[in-house]
Amino acid sequence: MTANKREMKLGAFFMIPGHHVAAWRHPDAEAHNVMNFDFVKRLAQTAERGKFDMIFLADTYAVRTGNQKAFEQTVNTLFEPFTLLSALSSVTERIGLAATVSTTFNEPFNVARRFASLDHLSKGRAAWNVVTSNTEAEAHNFSLEHHLPHEQRYDRAEEFVDIVKKLWDSWEDDALVINKESAQFVDGSKIQAIHHKGKWFSVEGPLNVSRPVQGHPVVIQAGSSEAGKELAARTAEVIFTAWQTLEEAQAFYADVKGRMKKYGRSPDELKIMPGVFPVIGRTEGEAEKNKKMLEELIPEEAGVALLSGMLSVDLSGYPVDGPLPDLPHLEQINGGKSRFKLLKDLAEREGLTIRKLYQRIAGARGHREIKGTPEQIADQLQEWFENGAADGFNIMPPYLPGGLEDFVDLVIPELQKRGLFRTEYEGNTLREHLGLKRPENTLIAKIGEAL
Amino acid sequence: MTANKREMKLGAFFMIPGHHVAAWRHPDAEAHNVMNFDFVKRLAQTAERGKFDMIFLADTYAVRTGNQKAFEQTVNTLFEPFTLLSALSSVTERIGLAATVSTTFNEPFNVARRFASLDHLSKGRAAWNVVTSNTEAEAHNFSLEHHLPHEQRYDRAEEFVDIVKKLWDSWEDDALVINKESAQFVDGSKIQAIHHKGKWFSVEGPLNVSRPVQGHPVVIQAGSSEAGKELAARTAEVIFTAWQTLEEAQAFYADVKGRMKKYGRSPDELKIMPGVFPVIGRTEGEAEKNKKMLEELIPEEAGVALLSGMLSVDLSGYPVDGPLPDLPHLEQINGGKSRFKLLKDLAEREGLTIRKLYQRIAGARGHREIKGTPEQIADQLQEWFENGAADGFNIMPPYLPGGLEDFVDLVIPELQKRGLFRTEYEGNTLREHLGLKRPENTLIAKIGEAL
Repeated sequence: MTANKREMKLGAFFMIPGHHVAAWRHPDAEAHNVMNFDFVKRLAQTAERGKFDMIFLADTYAVRTGNQKAFEQTVNTLFEPFTLLSALSSVTERIGLAATVSTTFNEPFNVARRFASLDHLSKGRAAWNVVTSNTEAEAHNFSLEHHLPHEQRYDRAEEFVDIVKKLWDSWEDDALVINKESAQFVDGSKIQAIHHKGKWFSVEGPLNVSRPVQGHPVVIQAGSSEAGKELAARTAEVIFTAWQTLEEAQAFYADVKGRMKKYGRSPDELKIMPGVFPVIGRTEGEAEKNKKMLEELIPEEAGVALLSGMLSVDLSGYPVDGPLPDLPHLEQINGGKSRFKLLKDLAEREGLTIRKLYQRIAGARGHREIKGTPEQIADQLQEWFENGAADGFNIMPPYLPGGLEDFVDLVIPELQKRGLFRTEYEGNTLREHLGLKRPENTLIAKIGEAL
Repeated sequence: MTANKREMKLGAFFMIPGHHVAAWRHPDAEAHNVMNFDFVKRLAQTAERGKFDMIFLADTYAVRTGNQKAFEQTVNTLFEPFTLLSALSSVTERIGLAATVSTTFNEPFNVARRFASLDHLSKGRAAWNVVTSNTEAEAHNFSLEHHLPHEQRYDRAEEFVDIVKKLWDSWEDDALVINKESAQFVDGSKIQAIHHKGKWFSVEGPLNVSRPVQGHPVVIQAGSSEAGKELAARTAEVIFTAWQTLEEAQAFYADVKGRMKKYGRSPDELKIMPGVFPVIGRTEGEAEKNKKMLEELIPEEAGVALLSGMLSVDLSGYPVDGPLPDLPHLEQINGGKSRFKLLKDLAEREGLTIRKLYQRIAGARGHREIKGTPEQIADQLQEWFENGAADGFNIMPPYLPGGLEDFVDLVIPELQKRGLFRTEYEGNTLREHLGLKRPENTLIAKIGEAL
């Protein structure tokens, strides 16, 4: 082991009470604790015990519907992720805190402010997973008749992220003077309006929060479309992505890292972390049994509704043990394009029925599913990590708390034994965990004029 | 003492590091801890030790500017209040958590969701202080050239609050079934779209959070204008208000409580809690000395800027030891109308110079300032409480932590001795502390159709 050996980065992706669509029916899942903070606190402390880089929370701005029966079979209540992370910040010490917040239904000043606040509260552990929102049901909760087309969502997102970063830079690091004697609280020459006037927003600034502990909270992105890859190469520091095969993951890794140079960035400044859904057993047989049990717990209507939602195509009229109907072309889809392509390719490649396809994706929802003993799980992570496919992984426990506890107690020790993962936090901030440098503040140099 | 004796309700209104504009210069104020969560956590635990009903946080969406010198003398960095309260929810047990969130720069679905989440996280301790935002500087951070006129702000606010309440009611209390055997997580007939289509918003619903622990988080309002009083009489459960004299406070109390009947509400369903800025000394002399010291610490430019901001009139060109210039008529003011009137009346009544006026308001900012020994402070609170002017008070410590510690350690025991304040929390939720009933869910009865 050398001082600068390369180690995996790991996110603990919490979906309560688990990622599998049938998680809540698992005998060991604490389904009754879905809105109980004490349960989530226990999960966060387990993840911190495992030395995860960060807790990661997804988000949605509407209930999932489908038909009445599917709706009744689905967990449709969740904590707003930013609120939850703020509460977790005061009962954890070192683990990073990554919240998904959409650029579609929020204002950049509010988002900049909340993440700056969380970064101060947590002493440098905040991360923002930037997403756009793409369902009609969400649009209808925000006074829109239809959700925005794909390009407009990305165009807005790009401007949104730029504004947020400028606001984080609107205070220099040493703007706070706090001299009681001379009555000077701040040095005004180090606080700067941003004067942003763009296509989507006009934001004057400065922010009313001093510069975040990390300079900028870590910026995470998810999309794998063309527009998403370009945005990520320009601005993302972590990409959370979904790939089924080593080859796909390698191609994506090379593609995105290759685009960074034209934005003056080095490949190290971006960590690519595919999602992984691990089904763990103490033996191979136990892992297989766990997987089968979850598959059999999927209520049929919920499975079809989940798949329909992911494809943006209503499958409820088709025989569940028949093939997928003809799907629209990619260009006609105004939803998550990369997920649509992945599912369509998977069904065609393996000739899956509707039931087989929803069983396949009901846990990982398009992410990679791995299964086996702790050693086999570690092998599969190591293969991608050492072959240009990943800098780390976002771990998606099938059900909670068991799926997380097994990963922490069985898989992480195996990764540590192989020198692939830290045995103790070396730094205090999320940037330090991830090996990302703290961004310099270039705003005042650029604008050249104080408030 | 009888079981149903009337007791004061008390809010601990935190402004970090104190309410006085010169608080940060006070020798005992922890000005260097202004962005340190450990400090705020200590304050919250002190307030909870004092058995306060709730912690209360104000908000603003822009830095205060004035001229360069005034800007440098002013504390312009603060935690976003909702983020801060969420973090405090997990390090406190019983105290209520009231965050100010503006209806002007947010979306009702987001606000309903965050407060529902905080209410679950805190097991029933959330409150929303509904305000409208009224400065140009704030408008310029949200893509608006000018801030909305007074009537439009209130019109929007009224619709906003209605939507939020409907969303909180979009799940019945017993909608969660969580039957693993029958695969039923919820009873779909108990979850309801709200189909709201109004002048400002269209929101379909339902919320993706189950019904809050308190039914509705407590709704607090502040405005004392005609529109503000009417809105409060119809929807508020707590009013935070500002009065200088017993007579004004009594008139307001009678006026607002008198308006409730036409909305089918009883006077007990609304608690009126004026703000109070207490300058406490162990002796009268010590209290007077504390007050003088704070006055002398006010930097001149910051004092003039504070007053200018509160009047929506720039006073920086006028001699500071001369009288106020002629002020515009109330109708011409598109800012905080009730605060404008209060300050204008005060200056005229007492013939104050600009300096004397800013010294007078630099702590309480229009709220009532009381001064003296713990017994004298208790006398002044008791007088209003027992004479139809207040159901309780929002306590505004001049500087922190000392101003709060003195109130908890000296004044609260005196109030308890007189039987005017609780010696222990009787209930668990903020509604129980305040004696407010849990709202019934009338949405499904009204709309009569499930999702």
